[in-house]
Amino acid sequence: MRLRYKPYAKDKIEQHPQYIVAMPEQYKGKWNEVFASNQPLHIEVGTGKGRFITEMAKANPQINYMGIELYDSVIVDALDRLIEADLPNLKLLNVNARDLGKYFEKNDVDRVYLNFSDPWPKIRHEKRRLTYKNFLKLYEEILVDGGEIHFKTDNQGLFEYSLMSFSEYGLLLKYVSLDFHKSDYQGNIMTEYEQKFSEMGNRIYRCEVKYQN
Amino acid sequence: MRLRYKPYAKDKIEQHPQYIVAMPEQYKGKWNEVFASNQPLHIEVGTGKGRFITEMAKANPQINYMGIELYDSVIVDALDRLIEADLPNLKLLNVNARDLGKYFEKNDVDRVYLNFSDPWPKIRHEKRRLTYKNFLKLYEEILVDGGEIHFKTDNQGLFEYSLMSFSEYGLLLKYVSLDFHKSDYQGNIMTEYEQKFSEMGNRIYRCEVKYQN
Repeated sequence: MRLRYKPYAKDKIEQHPQYIVAMPEQYKGKWNEVFASNQPLHIEVGTGKGRFITEMAKANPQINYMGIELYDSVIVDALDRLIEADLPNLKLLNVNARDLGKYFEKNDVDRVYLNFSDPWPKIRHEKRRLTYKNFLKLYEEILVDGGEIHFKTDNQGLFEYSLMSFSEYGLLLKYVSLDFHKSDYQGNIMTEYEQKFSEMGNRIYRCEVKYQN
Repeated sequence: MRLRYKPYAKDKIEQHPQYIVAMPEQYKGKWNEVFASNQPLHIEVGTGKGRFITEMAKANPQINYMGIELYDSVIVDALDRLIEADLPNLKLLNVNARDLGKYFEKNDVDRVYLNFSDPWPKIRHEKRRLTYKNFLKLYEEILVDGGEIHFKTDNQGLFEYSLMSFSEYGLLLKYVSLDFHKSDYQGNIMTEYEQKFSEMGNRIYRCEVKYQN
């Protein structure tokens, strides 16, 4: 994603702690306190401008959602969306995915979504890919037993890499589609990227994997 | 594959026991007796007209190959190829893949190739797919520990199914390509089908999986 510097972003984030959680460390192990209802929590790591997570939260009021995004200048767009929608089951978090363990503990999270993550195609950047084994370990440490990762991308190389990384880690491949928009899957919610790239004729790849603990 | 009845097939097969092994039961556990050299054995299950296995045998004299094909009218074409090439490291076997356990025992085989296997797209035919769990068990029972299956197909549905079946069975995904002919893989040998379907613009999918025992 091309990042545009937005000088107002930092202030705006701080002015909306009811949407972008301030001091998230204090909720480790008790995230239900920040939501209106005590119900499962699904997080999206790299939530971008927030269309996916906002539409998911609207469509599934029985689930709590949290969109995690590192970049100030991107999460403010998700914030605008959330201010408008004002959903009781959606919060945002402005932190680095590497630090998930600071904010969540085992069993805090029921599902992880990864959508159109940065492919980091160079081998020397493998460790930055959100499906690298260190990240799979991070997710395992905050997910419930048998928790799932739902992953979609239009990047063939990242998808191939991720299938191998999931397998190597011992995750069970529950579902895979190699041309998701032509599959019979119902109720897909598209990200901004997904709409743009699928309109350009790119295939969308998608899978669901499950921790076997 | 469209099968054409060839009345001469049965006789021709019987007249060439040096190429299409007669009474294969007797070689269980001692397949090296039928080859010129004692070296690893790779089998192709569903060898069709035999182009792949013949070219593999030419390219890799340090490996013994066996092409397994049920249909008389198909294996005779592979036989013609083998008569012409007359390779010391290639034999054919005219048997049903379901009966592999009659002819091979544990450690007889070092690798299994599956190329453009019949997709059997209807769910009620799942058990006939050569990547169904019962077949994965059959292969395990004749392969060495850590043996591999190398699989390619142009059938998206079969490939998706197979990735899930491999994962469910606990196989390690060592390699996967979702557009194999555009990958940087060197030395691919094409089957008859592969050439035809890739020329029609179909993507070729390929993976290598490994038993983790």
